[in-house]
Amino acid sequence: MFRAPVGIVGFSGYSGAELVTLLSRHPHVEPVLLEHRDGGDRPRPLGHEGPRRLPCSADSVGSARLAAVFLATPPEVSMDLAGPFLDAGAKVIDLSGAFRLGTAENYQRWYKELHTQPDLLAEAVYGLPEFCRGRVAAARLISNPGCYPTAANLAIKPLIEAGAIARELGIVCDAKSGVSGAGRKASLKTSFCEVTENFSAYSILDHRHVPEILRTSGLEEGEFSFTAQLIPIHRGILETIYFRSSGQIGSAEDLLEIYRSRYTSEPFVRLYPPGQVPDLQAVAHTNFCDIGWKYDPETRRTVVVSAIDNLGKGAAGQAVQNMNLALGYPETAGLL
Amino acid sequence: MFRAPVGIVGFSGYSGAELVTLLSRHPHVEPVLLEHRDGGDRPRPLGHEGPRRLPCSADSVGSARLAAVFLATPPEVSMDLAGPFLDAGAKVIDLSGAFRLGTAENYQRWYKELHTQPDLLAEAVYGLPEFCRGRVAAARLISNPGCYPTAANLAIKPLIEAGAIARELGIVCDAKSGVSGAGRKASLKTSFCEVTENFSAYSILDHRHVPEILRTSGLEEGEFSFTAQLIPIHRGILETIYFRSSGQIGSAEDLLEIYRSRYTSEPFVRLYPPGQVPDLQAVAHTNFCDIGWKYDPETRRTVVVSAIDNLGKGAAGQAVQNMNLALGYPETAGLL
Amino acid sequence: MFRAPVGIVGFSGYSGAELVTLLSRHPHVEPVLLEHRDGGDRPRPLGHEGPRRLPCSADSVGSARLAAVFLATPPEVSMDLAGPFLDAGAKVIDLSGAFRLGTAENYQRWYKELHTQPDLLAEAVYGLPEFCRGRVAAARLISNPGCYPTAANLAIKPLIEAGAIARELGIVCDAKSGVSGAGRKASLKTSFCEVTENFSAYSILDHRHVPEILRTSGLEEGEFSFTAQLIPIHRGILETIYFRSSGQIGSAEDLLEIYRSRYTSEPFVRLYPPGQVPDLQAVAHTNFCDIGWKYDPETRRTVVVSAIDNLGKGAAGQAVQNMNLALGYPETAGLL
Amino acid sequence: MFRAPVGIVGFSGYSGAELVTLLSRHPHVEPVLLEHRDGGDRPRPLGHEGPRRLPCSADSVGSARLAAVFLATPPEVSMDLAGPFLDAGAKVIDLSGAFRLGTAENYQRWYKELHTQPDLLAEAVYGLPEFCRGRVAAARLISNPGCYPTAANLAIKPLIEAGAIARELGIVCDAKSGVSGAGRKASLKTSFCEVTENFSAYSILDHRHVPEILRTSGLEEGEFSFTAQLIPIHRGILETIYFRSSGQIGSAEDLLEIYRSRYTSEPFVRLYPPGQVPDLQAVAHTNFCDIGWKYDPETRRTVVVSAIDNLGKGAAGQAVQNMNLALGYPETAGLL
Repeated sequence: MFRAPVGIVGFSGYSGAELVTLLSRHPHVEPVLLEHRDGGDRPRPLGHEGPRRLPCSADSVGSARLAAVFLATPPEVSMDLAGPFLDAGAKVIDLSGAFRLGTAENYQRWYKELHTQPDLLAEAVYGLPEFCRGRVAAARLISNPGCYPTAANLAIKPLIEAGAIARELGIVCDAKSGVSGAGRKASLKTSFCEVTENFSAYSILDHRHVPEILRTSGLEEGEFSFTAQLIPIHRGILETIYFRSSGQIGSAEDLLEIYRSRYTSEPFVRLYPPGQVPDLQAVAHTNFCDIGWKYDPETRRTVVVSAIDNLGKGAAGQAVQNMNLALGYPETAGLL
Repeated sequence: MFRAPVGIVGFSGYSGAELVTLLSRHPHVEPVLLEHRDGGDRPRPLGHEGPRRLPCSADSVGSARLAAVFLATPPEVSMDLAGPFLDAGAKVIDLSGAFRLGTAENYQRWYKELHTQPDLLAEAVYGLPEFCRGRVAAARLISNPGCYPTAANLAIKPLIEAGAIARELGIVCDAKSGVSGAGRKASLKTSFCEVTENFSAYSILDHRHVPEILRTSGLEEGEFSFTAQLIPIHRGILETIYFRSSGQIGSAEDLLEIYRSRYTSEPFVRLYPPGQVPDLQAVAHTNFCDIGWKYDPETRRTVVVSAIDNLGKGAAGQAVQNMNLALGYPETAGLL
Repeated sequence: MFRAPVGIVGFSGYSGAELVTLLSRHPHVEPVLLEHRDGGDRPRPLGHEGPRRLPCSADSVGSARLAAVFLATPPEVSMDLAGPFLDAGAKVIDLSGAFRLGTAENYQRWYKELHTQPDLLAEAVYGLPEFCRGRVAAARLISNPGCYPTAANLAIKPLIEAGAIARELGIVCDAKSGVSGAGRKASLKTSFCEVTENFSAYSILDHRHVPEILRTSGLEEGEFSFTAQLIPIHRGILETIYFRSSGQIGSAEDLLEIYRSRYTSEPFVRLYPPGQVPDLQAVAHTNFCDIGWKYDPETRRTVVVSAIDNLGKGAAGQAVQNMNLALGYPETAGLL
Repeated sequence: MFRAPVGIVGFSGYSGAELVTLLSRHPHVEPVLLEHRDGGDRPRPLGHEGPRRLPCSADSVGSARLAAVFLATPPEVSMDLAGPFLDAGAKVIDLSGAFRLGTAENYQRWYKELHTQPDLLAEAVYGLPEFCRGRVAAARLISNPGCYPTAANLAIKPLIEAGAIARELGIVCDAKSGVSGAGRKASLKTSFCEVTENFSAYSILDHRHVPEILRTSGLEEGEFSFTAQLIPIHRGILETIYFRSSGQIGSAEDLLEIYRSRYTSEPFVRLYPPGQVPDLQAVAHTNFCDIGWKYDPETRRTVVVSAIDNLGKGAAGQAVQNMNLALGYPETAGLL
């Protein structure tokens, strides 16, 4: 059966390698590796050399008739490559932060760099399918959401839209991530001996993913406190979210009702019985976002736990979901 | 040099074994193991059999003239042993929750069991030296604080006393602990394969340590949201605490001022330069509680990070600190 | 498309759960859970209750017309269930050691228990497809190999058959396994805090898997030294095998020639370029056995590294491979 | 009490930081940090800035009257610094491989670099106190042994000297190390995500530590097969050593006899009851080398397990032991 070729730039990184794994099993496409400063190759068994490789260029994209190209690259590389690849006829799905923040000003504030492609930035569609499925299907350039924002927005956006949260008291999102979220570049901070038997907070109140959460959820910066933390594990994000409910909520079941009405036909959002919450093993190596919560009716204190695999729904899995929408395949193809 | 004998019940557990390690290096006391249903012995090298062992009984305590006995035991065992050991002339330092909650009613609500020793409960002194040093020195029965409450109260009590927190908006304490906090009893929940590459929340809003935090800090239950979570590491507790400051605080330095005035001469509380926070490696195998914070002056959002070794300041280390006070040794003996 | 029902006993253990995962994705069969003293259930999302469940009985096997039943159970349970399930018309694939050692005497020596089903023991076919594919396809009762023996025999049997090893000098197999190999029963030895930041040897020279290796490879006990060791990871087995080559070997390429002639058309054995060896990440979550080696031509010293996922080729994966053979499906169905 | 100042170069690395920890608790010396391209500083609590710092120069060594200097540096740096520091009056204890291999030729073969200080190489004393205590006490320049050789030689040298091993059949040493053995320089190979849930062999048959083992033990290269492997832990080395005993050995107790006669008064070598072996938790954060073994009297197959903390007896601990000898302090000062 014909499988359409799709390109991957940055295939030796963690998100890129996960894309190779997912696309190699995909029923409708086959991965092509676009070589771009890749390194850190692992030994390969004889006769198992993996997908074919092409130079990373618009020529390759055009002559190999790649239907789509995934950019698992730093934002500055994504800004360089997106335009030429679109011109060469491919849909582009960018996993970096280059096209997530809507305006060049916002990008510059949080990424401390000039945005070199403001036109593409304006065109890019934010690829959180649960909230913008139609626009993704029609897009040329899809900006794949950040890992933390995916887990956060899927958990809080339905509640905010339903008016279930007493926003004036503030929302706390205490986020924890496995180390693969930091990428595969060697650095002291992600060295084994610095991470094992350790736990550390970083980017307290000023993480780059905050504006992405605000933009999608509609919260104001002052209403939302976010801390990122490093768990000594390979993959997984768990966010513990605290708020008080508004007066319209009287029980844990009321929250279930809101989530259910929003997610009942969503293939990749799973809800837990009230009082139960997911852990990271529940979502490892999947494209699911699992959501559970606990509610104290006397004081309206609420704790929601949202869990994803940062390389799955938090990066490569969601990117494949977006590709399926953009190329007209079943949304779950290759993901269950 | 004479070293006074002190007993340890529960020496094969994690807190108990840490006590053995600390007391073996202590300049003024020597550990004696009181054998009580201990198991799980590890192979021992020839000629390194460790401290001497006695049956666990009031007779042993009396005839060996133990100056103090540490109970690293479940609460129901501590309730049984504390009285007879006090009668036998020893000071008793209990590491369980048996004597922490002030009243039998409070104990019964949170531990779901009757308290069998209400008189001892009334007599017991809560051993958080930074806030009750004098009473500890005079006590016969010392209730060693829980691990989570130690990290929480050292971080928030000075701020609450100073009126630095807008309590009406609520305080969130997102707490994470290494697995040794669950004790050394075999259970599926603490099995390696259930914990590794995982992260999970438990006892959301209803952890037994919550009343201990409320009692010491003076907070109301509705003002304080607490979640406990399991990190795949052996030892360490890190708590990320969120609140908005009251109007009297205008900068991160104002918070430093409050902490400093409280802790300037404390040997085991360490403060970080404003904007920096501790990680768990900073406190591993120590009796320190390390405190750092980040403050957003525009919105008054504040995040405080408090870190301890749950077997150090969170259990055995603090117990030795309490023993030093109760027996009249220098408070830091054997702990630096 | 019709998928034939196949049963799993012991589905809550690690091998059993891996079977559920693999069979849920299998194109030709669907898993049915046979409930037998299972416990340790994890929270499940609403609407994702997993495969259907039946009581564990011959009646269930017969009335549900299960084509095959996997026994991921202790040997004594497997001995009880295998006969009735065969009588009920299912092929039986046993993952325990009950039917691996050929004779009741051999079983009793190594498992320290009487074998209650000597007739079934005689009938059982040892399911290492690379060496007995034809017999597996015709078998009613398949004894799935142990994890250590699978990695060992795939690495050494071709060399022994080719006379490439100076057996009189002895072969050393230093084996290391992830913790899931010990099963999911709570025990102190597999508790997180006992395993993390640790590494330990066990069953030195007398592991139960030794006779299985001898029986398949044709080695004598005195020629083969085996130590099992626990790595602080969830899954994976790596064996480092030492010997001197016989005179007929002159280079690392000579060893490659022997392996190639044996494995050239094997879908699940992968060979590395001489001088390179696999690590455990190469085989995690796969059914591959990866083999690499280093050879010193001056002294004929040889080191072979063999790596598998103990839950894949070492248990559930190989069991599915055996099922595919026994039920007439493509051997790789559901495994690539 | 006066504590003599001793210098540490490379104090921000793992061995260097362990030296700082050990020397800060030492009763007779106090550490001074000699700043030499150090980086990767961790946040430090206010008022806890650690030992005083000096520029790394012979002037500093002379004017601060450092009694000894530890070089926890790469070999090329050690070759540069050792001479000037000796001239400035300090004893020098080098933790690199610069001065371990006796001759410049041997160094060049294994380290692939010219040795620039052959005179110092000739003068250096190999600091394995159990076998050369007297020479260490008299030395100016002490070459601290490698981590793997320390564990290997303490386990096999007494047996080789006693003629207890059938050397013609070969000795296998399967060695495993925690990640800190690779140093604190950021590299992909020691990145968390490459190491966790993994296990890998490296430098098979050609590790730089092999010649050190041969030189001390008296074995020939062809008699000794060595593989190094990476365990996903911070610290610890465990070596599993295989051989057949010579005819003079008839039981596990005979081996005990040999070890005992050699180590009976050694403070840092511990022996296990025959049949029991150490694990890594037994030696973590200590200066002990623990040795246990299993023996099969029928076939003379023997397995010895030797365990150390690679940062303790394998590096910093042994370096302090050597310093104690060289400066005339009790050999165990600061190490128990």
